[in-house]
Amino acid sequence: MITLNTKEQKYLLDTIRTIADFPKKGIQFRDITTLLNNKEALSFLLNHLQERYKNTKLDFIAGAESRGFIFAAMLCARLNVPFVPIRKPKKLPYKTFSCEYELEYGSDTLEIHQDAFNGISNAKVLLVDDLIATGGTAIASCELIQKAGGQCIESCFLLELKDLKGVEKLSSITSVYSILQI
Amino acid sequence: MITLNTKEQKYLLDTIRTIADFPKKGIQFRDITTLLNNKEALSFLLNHLQERYKNTKLDFIAGAESRGFIFAAMLCARLNVPFVPIRKPKKLPYKTFSCEYELEYGSDTLEIHQDAFNGISNAKVLLVDDLIATGGTAIASCELIQKAGGQCIESCFLLELKDLKGVEKLSSITSVYSILQI
Repeated sequence: MITLNTKEQKYLLDTIRTIADFPKKGIQFRDITTLLNNKEALSFLLNHLQERYKNTKLDFIAGAESRGFIFAAMLCARLNVPFVPIRKPKKLPYKTFSCEYELEYGSDTLEIHQDAFNGISNAKVLLVDDLIATGGTAIASCELIQKAGGQCIESCFLLELKDLKGVEKLSSITSVYSILQI
Repeated sequence: MITLNTKEQKYLLDTIRTIADFPKKGIQFRDITTLLNNKEALSFLLNHLQERYKNTKLDFIAGAESRGFIFAAMLCARLNVPFVPIRKPKKLPYKTFSCEYELEYGSDTLEIHQDAFNGISNAKVLLVDDLIATGGTAIASCELIQKAGGQCIESCFLLELKDLKGVEKLSSITSVYSILQI
């Protein structure tokens, strides 16, 4: 499967803005809005993702609320693959499966519709998100995809924060592709 | 500009599920996840939107958190137009403009990055959302687009809840296209 070369990675990385001390002191926040509003960079990224996955048999692309919706939805539109949202509690109106996962302090929960995969058994699902840090959201999302009867064939992230070792943990349950690493 | 005929509208409407008494008693919730996970219906909708806007000069497509991100991002990917997220408070990391708007009980606030339009002056912006009810979110979004130096040339909704008269209010500040009406 294709990946980006070092020069292409640098081009995209340079379009992501870093904001110091957001949302709290000591955090270097990676702001992808400067990639999203950059016509050339966004097209380049989407062309790459489309090229990488165009020959993969995908039944669905899933994305987790809220920022995860953005690239997942974009790739759905490019590949003509339907979209499955993974959401915070009480947002999905029909019967759901839930998964609680640990945060640095406390825990959080994500949900998927029980009929998310529209009757397709063993649906092949690509999970797409903008960022992988500790991997908590992604691991919970993969678990939800399984609960709903699908299989996460790969999870794809724009940006991997390497120090937090999320990819290491996630790799034991699914294939992982991080486009950029910091 | 093209629109859907009655038969095409009925086809799409039938893919949207109605859930009674969600999120509270008496509300008929329109569940678009059954359109999003329907390959044929989603492709049909995106082809229509792409066809409608392919010759429109658009600098950006904007969408409001969270569900508004989905169709806005999809159309960006089809048209190769960059994306601008409008978000709830404290989500956008850089300098923002804010707009408070009234809800049935209380109020809510949305924000846009001050440099959302990436230096393009008088940027032509299409606002896309899944639903227009009272129009509060859409009117606030248009106001934010203006504050950031853009002009909302049209706002496009998958579904209009006609009784709530949001389109009437919004029409005084921008062109409105609702694909489906209930």
